[in-house]
Amino acid sequence: MTEKDVVERLEEIVGKKNVQADKIGLTSYGYDATLLSGVGMATVFPLSTEHVVKLVKLANEAGFTLIPRGAGTNLSGGTIPDGRCVTVNFSRMKKILDIDTENFVAVVEPGLVNFDLQAELEKKGFYYPPDPASYKATTLGGNLAECSGGPRCFKYGVTRDYILGLEVVLPDGKVIQTGGRNFNSEPGYDLTRILVGSEGTLALLTKIFLRILPLPAAKKTMLAIYNQVEDASQTVSDIVAAGIVPTTLEMMDNLLINTAEDATGAGLPRDAGALLIIEIDGHPEDMDEQVETIAGICKKARVREFKMARTAAEVDQLWLARRVVIGSVARRRPSYSLQDITVPRSMFPNMVSGILQIAKERNLEVGILAHAGDGNMHPLVLFDQRIEEEVERVHLAEKDICALALELGGTLSGEHGIGLLKKKYLTLEFSPVAMACFAKIKNSFDPRHLLNPGKIMNL
Amino acid sequence: MTEKDVVERLEEIVGKKNVQADKIGLTSYGYDATLLSGVGMATVFPLSTEHVVKLVKLANEAGFTLIPRGAGTNLSGGTIPDGRCVTVNFSRMKKILDIDTENFVAVVEPGLVNFDLQAELEKKGFYYPPDPASYKATTLGGNLAECSGGPRCFKYGVTRDYILGLEVVLPDGKVIQTGGRNFNSEPGYDLTRILVGSEGTLALLTKIFLRILPLPAAKKTMLAIYNQVEDASQTVSDIVAAGIVPTTLEMMDNLLINTAEDATGAGLPRDAGALLIIEIDGHPEDMDEQVETIAGICKKARVREFKMARTAAEVDQLWLARRVVIGSVARRRPSYSLQDITVPRSMFPNMVSGILQIAKERNLEVGILAHAGDGNMHPLVLFDQRIEEEVERVHLAEKDICALALELGGTLSGEHGIGLLKKKYLTLEFSPVAMACFAKIKNSFDPRHLLNPGKIMNL
Ligand SMILES: Cc1cc2nc3c(=O)[nH]c(=O)nc-3n(C[C@H](O)[C@H](O)[C@H](O)COP(=O)(O)OP(=O)(O)OC[C@H]3O[C@@H](n4cnc5c(N)ncnc54)[C@H](O)[C@@H]3O)c2cc1C
Ligand SMILES: Cc1cc2nc3c(=O)[nH]c(=O)nc-3n(C[C@H](O)[C@H](O)[C@H](O)COP(=O)(O)OP(=O)(O)OC[C@H]3O[C@@H](n4cnc5c(N)ncnc54)[C@H](O)[C@@H]3O)c2cc1C
Repeated sequence: MTEKDVVERLEEIVGKKNVQADKIGLTSYGYDATLLSGVGMATVFPLSTEHVVKLVKLANEAGFTLIPRGAGTNLSGGTIPDGRCVTVNFSRMKKILDIDTENFVAVVEPGLVNFDLQAELEKKGFYYPPDPASYKATTLGGNLAECSGGPRCFKYGVTRDYILGLEVVLPDGKVIQTGGRNFNSEPGYDLTRILVGSEGTLALLTKIFLRILPLPAAKKTMLAIYNQVEDASQTVSDIVAAGIVPTTLEMMDNLLINTAEDATGAGLPRDAGALLIIEIDGHPEDMDEQVETIAGICKKARVREFKMARTAAEVDQLWLARRVVIGSVARRRPSYSLQDITVPRSMFPNMVSGILQIAKERNLEVGILAHAGDGNMHPLVLFDQRIEEEVERVHLAEKDICALALELGGTLSGEHGIGLLKKKYLTLEFSPVAMACFAKIKNSFDPRHLLNPGKIMNL
Repeated sequence: MTEKDVVERLEEIVGKKNVQADKIGLTSYGYDATLLSGVGMATVFPLSTEHVVKLVKLANEAGFTLIPRGAGTNLSGGTIPDGRCVTVNFSRMKKILDIDTENFVAVVEPGLVNFDLQAELEKKGFYYPPDPASYKATTLGGNLAECSGGPRCFKYGVTRDYILGLEVVLPDGKVIQTGGRNFNSEPGYDLTRILVGSEGTLALLTKIFLRILPLPAAKKTMLAIYNQVEDASQTVSDIVAAGIVPTTLEMMDNLLINTAEDATGAGLPRDAGALLIIEIDGHPEDMDEQVETIAGICKKARVREFKMARTAAEVDQLWLARRVVIGSVARRRPSYSLQDITVPRSMFPNMVSGILQIAKERNLEVGILAHAGDGNMHPLVLFDQRIEEEVERVHLAEKDICALALELGGTLSGEHGIGLLKKKYLTLEFSPVAMACFAKIKNSFDPRHLLNPGKIMNL
């Protein structure tokens, strides 16, 4: 089938309005939040499970591959098209099908934006815990496929912990439902959790059953500023050791404080070594006592300034730096490489000093952003893509960072997935036998390698 | 290889003391907590991962199958041997390898008894949430393989939510490690969670990384007694609707109150319709307010008696009936069939009345025990195994109960697994396409069907 014939057949399935095959369309959906890009044959916007089934059948018949896509904000090259493929853009399948407050369940289509769900839930006194920093743009399908985390995940866990069931279209066009509105284990093999984090390589999600929670009765947001990054790390350990489980323990180092200040002019102290955003939630009566304990711990760790937000506007102000930080580095250097390693919490200080050491050795600027409570760190390596020699050093630093994380008992990816970007490092973490298990799982679901080929691993 | 040769080779691997092939041994490990039993060739007690690897290699070479076993308390026929097989009894691999309070992780061997872990953790101010009622006997390997729940799981989630990583021996004798001490997602496909709940059919567990939590600062235990089972159901809904998430909401109906009273003489009111055991935990200052709210809700639902335990001895007293209840029915009728359906919480009252209706129609005595908060119910169907005609009615009632649970959006098994006992009902819940996915997963891990063959499904 020629490309032109394929596009015609796509238009028959979803209607002309829901296919884009011109240059603008191909470019728009050829990239993601990495520096990678590619070009496929077309982008198609299904509106229903039936559409998706037909698309998969056509792909089988005409011999092209499918690249599922939500908002395209992933940080691992997970939606990059390549050659004879069609991007399946789920952004028009975005209905909330049910908000079932009695059973703490929401049922949604995969293209729904995380923030749009939160807004509807809030009206009913509920929320959905996983909140990637990108939640204003990202889809729940994308979140599920990456098993995304977020600032709140220290206390509440990652996407995996909130998925109760799925409807998916398999690579042969058949539809299955897994799980549902029940909270216990799933009989048989746990299909739901095999699909969570599978990066669009095993099945296409068409419906998601999510676990939701009642909004906490109270919340407090604090900002702690330190001269030394080591003191911030110490605070993180001490808070956890005191038996307090904050919802959020976000850390930014000196470099990122400065780029954020460049971007916002909010008055962040440019000479500070690090800052922590600390948030707790729970019963109103516990809040004051916990804030006091936390303030005491910060003080013991030589905090330089400790603020508590008293109004919603002040909370926003405290979050401002964190919100702009990733974008803000663009003023400093034109490109960045964002890592996503996780180490056991006790290794957090070692990992921080190790990253600073690597930056020095490779002569690179590296900023450290971290969901510190669960040991998930995002070193941002700054560089200029046009300077070849620098790019080489960036790759070496990436590899050093991954190797150090593994040495400290950590993992390559806490929440951003493997995609194209990290697959070259996967064998550092997994033995050939484990890699063979991955291959068997992929082959048993998708023997023709129709879905997102080349992502996670080469086969 | 003859049976005798097999036994000799087993003895070479683990030593004579760790093999049992006499009649007593075969009988002792030929049953579980169902009425089923079978006979294999031998039971072997490995002491190390290396032993397990050698056993698997021998099984491949000599052509016999392996039946993994913990304490044998499962309720689905999951450890029943059959023919040319060897039971791998993990009860002597029971070391605690590490309690890492800094990272909230415990590392254990699979034969460790849940209670023995809890006792050690308590000394350090920690605990492991999943607590099957059988936790004094059951092993963590068995808990993992069944994805067990327990009274505390309403608030804290099931075994799945507490497994961070594994070391397993695959059916070809190769060893892999999955996950570790990190809390985020696992890169690649989620091998850890494919193995949780896989009932010993995909791999042999040799090491488990568990997530542990600091002991809650305070706990309160309450008992509520009702004239009508409907009022108890109403209380469950109302508590959850009030935004309270107790650790425990256990329900027992009139029949079970009576059998428990027969067994204990503890003074339970024989004419009560149902009782609820309610437990909450958290911050000391919240406890009183929550108890008051709960007391009010119980009152509104026409509670007949509401007690709060003031001492540890009183807590024990409140739990007494729940602890003896399963065994206690033996005085009433010689046999019981324990179901394990889960329905969305809102369907709990419908399921209760449906079960009572089925009992009437099939002319059987059925007691209802439930982890009511998460909709997980254990109807106990009482009968006499020697009366063939009654056994037939029991099977019909089982099927009715499964069908009703599915009709109400529920599932066949909340926490006891499928094993041999429920596999005939699995196709009621799962479509042929989903069943084919299960088969593909099994075949990709264990193409020769070496591990626990015939459990979960026939292949
Ligand atoms: C500024 C910024 C901040 C971020 N912060 C965080 C953070 O705090 N935590 C975090 O975890 N991530 C974060 N991310 C990464 C990213 O936002 C997440 O990975 C997000 O979940 C991706 O969602 P998406 O809708 O953009 O998916 P996409 O990028 O479009 O796709 C992601 C993956 O999902 C697959 N997919 C999408 N829809 C489907 C479907 N219906 N069926 C099957 N597969 C599908 C794709 O094939 C791809 O593999 C951040 C990114 C940016 C740019
Ligand atoms: C009175 C009573 C109360 C109970 N209460 C509860 C309850 O509240 N909640 C609940 O969920 N269950 C409950 N159960 C069921 C049972 O106790 C659980 O299923 C328990 O987890 C089984 O553990 P076990 O060590 O006895 O495992 P076993 O029964 O020996 O084995 C269970 C499964 O695990 C597999 N297995 C065991 N060890 C390994 C290993 N190392 N590697 C691979 N596979 C392995 C076996 O092959 C089998 O499939 C109860 C049972 C009884 C008798």
